[in-house]
Amino acid sequence: MTTYILRCITCKKEFDSQPGLYYCEDCGKIMGTLEVVYDYESIKEDPVVREKKFDKKASMYQFSFLLPTISKLQLDEYVGGTPLYKFDLLGMKDVLVKYDGSNPSSSYKDRASSIAINKAIDEGNDILFCASTGNAAASLAMLNAYTDMKTYIFVPAAIPDGKRAQLEISGAEVYAVEGTYDEVYDLSLDLGLEKGWYCRHAAINPYLLEGKKTGAFEIVIQNDFEVPDYVFIGVGDGTVVSSLYKGFWEFREIGLTDKIPKIIGVQAEGIPAIKEAFEKGKPYKPIAIDGSTVADSISVGKPRDVIKACTYVEASNGFFISLTDDEILDAIKELGKTGIFAEPAGAVPYGGLKKLIYEEKITESDTVCLVITGNGLKDVNAVKDAISKTIFTTEEVIKRFEE
Amino acid sequence: MTTYILRCITCKKEFDSQPGLYYCEDCGKIMGTLEVVYDYESIKEDPVVREKKFDKKASMYQFSFLLPTISKLQLDEYVGGTPLYKFDLLGMKDVLVKYDGSNPSSSYKDRASSIAINKAIDEGNDILFCASTGNAAASLAMLNAYTDMKTYIFVPAAIPDGKRAQLEISGAEVYAVEGTYDEVYDLSLDLGLEKGWYCRHAAINPYLLEGKKTGAFEIVIQNDFEVPDYVFIGVGDGTVVSSLYKGFWEFREIGLTDKIPKIIGVQAEGIPAIKEAFEKGKPYKPIAIDGSTVADSISVGKPRDVIKACTYVEASNGFFISLTDDEILDAIKELGKTGIFAEPAGAVPYGGLKKLIYEEKITESDTVCLVITGNGLKDVNAVKDAISKTIFTTEEVIKRFEE
Repeated sequence: MTTYILRCITCKKEFDSQPGLYYCEDCGKIMGTLEVVYDYESIKEDPVVREKKFDKKASMYQFSFLLPTISKLQLDEYVGGTPLYKFDLLGMKDVLVKYDGSNPSSSYKDRASSIAINKAIDEGNDILFCASTGNAAASLAMLNAYTDMKTYIFVPAAIPDGKRAQLEISGAEVYAVEGTYDEVYDLSLDLGLEKGWYCRHAAINPYLLEGKKTGAFEIVIQNDFEVPDYVFIGVGDGTVVSSLYKGFWEFREIGLTDKIPKIIGVQAEGIPAIKEAFEKGKPYKPIAIDGSTVADSISVGKPRDVIKACTYVEASNGFFISLTDDEILDAIKELGKTGIFAEPAGAVPYGGLKKLIYEEKITESDTVCLVITGNGLKDVNAVKDAISKTIFTTEEVIKRFEE
Repeated sequence: MTTYILRCITCKKEFDSQPGLYYCEDCGKIMGTLEVVYDYESIKEDPVVREKKFDKKASMYQFSFLLPTISKLQLDEYVGGTPLYKFDLLGMKDVLVKYDGSNPSSSYKDRASSIAINKAIDEGNDILFCASTGNAAASLAMLNAYTDMKTYIFVPAAIPDGKRAQLEISGAEVYAVEGTYDEVYDLSLDLGLEKGWYCRHAAINPYLLEGKKTGAFEIVIQNDFEVPDYVFIGVGDGTVVSSLYKGFWEFREIGLTDKIPKIIGVQAEGIPAIKEAFEKGKPYKPIAIDGSTVADSISVGKPRDVIKACTYVEASNGFFISLTDDEILDAIKELGKTGIFAEPAGAVPYGGLKKLIYEEKITESDTVCLVITGNGLKDVNAVKDAISKTIFTTEEVIKRFEE
């Protein structure tokens, strides 16, 4: 088993891994998020790494030499190993598109939920919990459905019936609670930590980012170790954007690549919390803003992984941009012409690329990867306005093709 | 390239493949469906077959030695190679569950659409068409989105906005036509055949079944060449059930296995057309009944592949059963406890197994595979009634866990 320690993102204090330890108590839940740090020198000697013995379709557990746990679930076999396509888009040749909608629960979040469940097993915990309105909860509930462990899901009472149905079908115990998402999140975190349940909140539990970073590893091996110049990713709480940086950094650290892409975090203009925190400059601070967006998966006003997200994006020489809801909906439709149907938050990388091409910050000679985090079937309502209202009679159709 | 001929299911006349030839004109569109017949003796000598060089995650084109075309699309790389899980279910150990919801458009139909597009390219055709309200059309539209070929989709005007949006997002030209599904189907078939567009109607175009049969091939190789005693599949038009039989038959014919499973076709009790045709006995005849079911993908009153479906299921020593809508909805919920979320038609194999266990037609000593054809996200509305309406206050949640 790979060994590792935990290190506070702010005060750099180091900790040994132990059940119930999720953050640095001196620095608090937001300033004191932890990084998982491995012994990179010894990992360089791992035969898989030395011989680059990777498989473009294998699950994310082919990267066990850089993970804090190992696969114990049957469904793990199909987490990761998702497609990397190349499309000519927006005047650019061979834009890489990493599509994570084919994971078991149809989103990127499976990479984190799988780690959570395997880590809970390692710790002998038999209850996992999550507060979420969307993909993270569905992912935990579905991957944990067939284990002997319990799943508690806390959601605001106002979430759509359909999303709630997906949760309940998995057999998770779902608590629909009066209040906002932020209130439900705080309730569940207090309750779960007090009870000693295993925490599947990616912004608090440092191990979950370890699962998410495997998306970066796959981009590298699937593109034959050519690292793109730019990677675009939607940003809500800040965990996926952080994980991508860490993945590219680690592959460079163990000698598999010699470059880290500029990470471009794409937010919704209606609620661009991390972008605002980033642009205020260092030292990065927690932020809370009001707002909303059609892209529910990145509709976060109080981001919990803001410090890592800002620190890592800066380290990559990247930055944050934001899109209007109209730009997001256009992105879904334009990306659809490749055969990829993305949920709103999954389509924002495309919209971000379009914006930077328009602003001439990215040109034809740059290489680019868009990370699409969720299947469009997750939120069909968002694109209802894309349809034409025209109805034809049989005669009109026949006439139409007589011309 | 593998060579093959076409043979009429009824009069057994043989034809060479040629553009525009979809059925035996002497016997008509329903009685005269064609089978694709290969030179099985020479395929036995193919090195892939002789050395059993298969990959459990490779796309369906690893079976090119038994396909009428080869892969030319990027998205083909991720059609097939879908998960085969083993779950303890309904008192049985190691029930095989083949889950096709992870294909590019989230359904089994991609196996047929991919063949249609590649075959159209072979024939130099640049327009494909399909009449459908659901998975077949979405699949064709999405897989064909990034090619230079046109897609015409004909749908009844009454289909849900969401489904129509999925089609239009891909860039397909969608005609919403006043009338029933059967009327739109007939209109599009007449128009498309007259215009010489490439036909993506699995019940008419014999090549599409060739793509669908690869599901059977994958069950065999993913289960280490152990053929289960029973395979359960939902049945609407009759094409997937036919394709599974043909796949198992061909693998036996080329010496890779020595057995064909009993194929159990599961229909909806509200509209069990093929079951009725089958139970009337030979010679099998076309049938048309009225009815409806919550499982829209198998809601077919005038099945077009009825002759093959009945003939093949009989040859497998299998039979047809039917489920009420309540049994179908229960099947979705119970299957959900494995972490697999199926659309209604995708969950009927589970309901069928449950029924046959209850009737003591299947016992613990039998080996079984359930084929799940579509992702539950395709039809979230169908399971809305699965949710509890209970809403908690923060205080009630805290109190609940104090006990």
